[in-house]
Amino acid sequence: MEHEAPSPRTRIRRKPQRGHYDTATVAAIVDTALICQIAFNQGDSVHCLPTACWRVGNALYIHGANNSRLTRTLLDSDCSVCIAHVDGLVLARSAFHHSMNFRSVVIYGRFVAVDAPEEKKTALAAFVEHVSPGRSALVRPPNDAELAGTAVLRLRLDEAAAKIRNWGVEDDACDLDIPVWAGVVPLRCTAGEMEAEAACTDFPQPSLPDYLLTT
Amino acid sequence: MEHEAPSPRTRIRRKPQRGHYDTATVAAIVDTALICQIAFNQGDSVHCLPTACWRVGNALYIHGANNSRLTRTLLDSDCSVCIAHVDGLVLARSAFHHSMNFRSVVIYGRFVAVDAPEEKKTALAAFVEHVSPGRSALVRPPNDAELAGTAVLRLRLDEAAAKIRNWGVEDDACDLDIPVWAGVVPLRCTAGEMEAEAACTDFPQPSLPDYLLTT
Repeated sequence: MEHEAPSPRTRIRRKPQRGHYDTATVAAIVDTALICQIAFNQGDSVHCLPTACWRVGNALYIHGANNSRLTRTLLDSDCSVCIAHVDGLVLARSAFHHSMNFRSVVIYGRFVAVDAPEEKKTALAAFVEHVSPGRSALVRPPNDAELAGTAVLRLRLDEAAAKIRNWGVEDDACDLDIPVWAGVVPLRCTAGEMEAEAACTDFPQPSLPDYLLTT
Repeated sequence: MEHEAPSPRTRIRRKPQRGHYDTATVAAIVDTALICQIAFNQGDSVHCLPTACWRVGNALYIHGANNSRLTRTLLDSDCSVCIAHVDGLVLARSAFHHSMNFRSVVIYGRFVAVDAPEEKKTALAAFVEHVSPGRSALVRPPNDAELAGTAVLRLRLDEAAAKIRNWGVEDDACDLDIPVWAGVVPLRCTAGEMEAEAACTDFPQPSLPDYLLTT
């Protein structure tokens, strides 16, 4: 580990050799995510909800309707945000040593509202760029009513921990002669054939980010 | 909606037309997941952690080291579990109407420990089958020490809500003449070329479940 955990609750206790706390590692995992899961408490219950996310600088951004439970509740209490990518199945010779390759980040903190109109516009344009680079200049930007109805929230990435497993099978020595295939099955999120609206088949197809490898 | 929400906290309030509460829909979404995210409270903080999961009957299963924080804490308090699949980018003519196609499930309840040895063995074999059908008969099964060191936890799917978006672009009528590609980019989790251990290249490759489409 190159860096120390930024807080006691981000310290990786289970398999600490998989932990990373540096900004670049955290940012790289966030940058390949379309969604995150957010844990928060509301109404005597803990909740875990998925929502789209993207990064600008040292912060994770989410958005939602201005009157939604999620965006209202998150401004009033701390939360925990998880992003997890499964990168492979690790198939061992023993059931016990089966594993998965993955990259995950857990972030702690409290979201703040992005209220300044220009900052909100910039953040929403960055979201469009995150899913299709170059697209924000091609589509109609949000109008005043759309901006007013949309909440944009920002969570600094200061209190975050990444966990990565990206290696092969770790079988016990006594199992190495078992005659079964062992190895890694890589997994990735892949874009399939684009489904254009009928009126759009002659327009150039959208660009896709590198993290969505095309088939 | 064919069914009612099983509890107030599972009722979908934001875009309720996307909500589903029937067992088959919930099970189908769980069955295409390798991991879930679990929200729980511990030590004055809410946490959101990813872990592998699978389904047997009407329950979601997870496992972990017997002495891990996650497995110990989950037996003592309610949690919320989220599974979310991103199935496509919905690229509209306006920034505002961009969306994603997805299938998600949120489950509420409390995990219970699977302690009976036979039930534990059966559950762990089902996990191996979930990642590679037919594989549990080929690999070395867990020995007594491995079983003793592994906690298996079960959460009934009774209090669960699914949310699905699986349709095309919904642009405003006034935007339909904007000359930009609009449509859906399908996304899926895809298995790449298998990376065999050096000693295993002559063994038959493992089978993969249908939800991991191969390239």
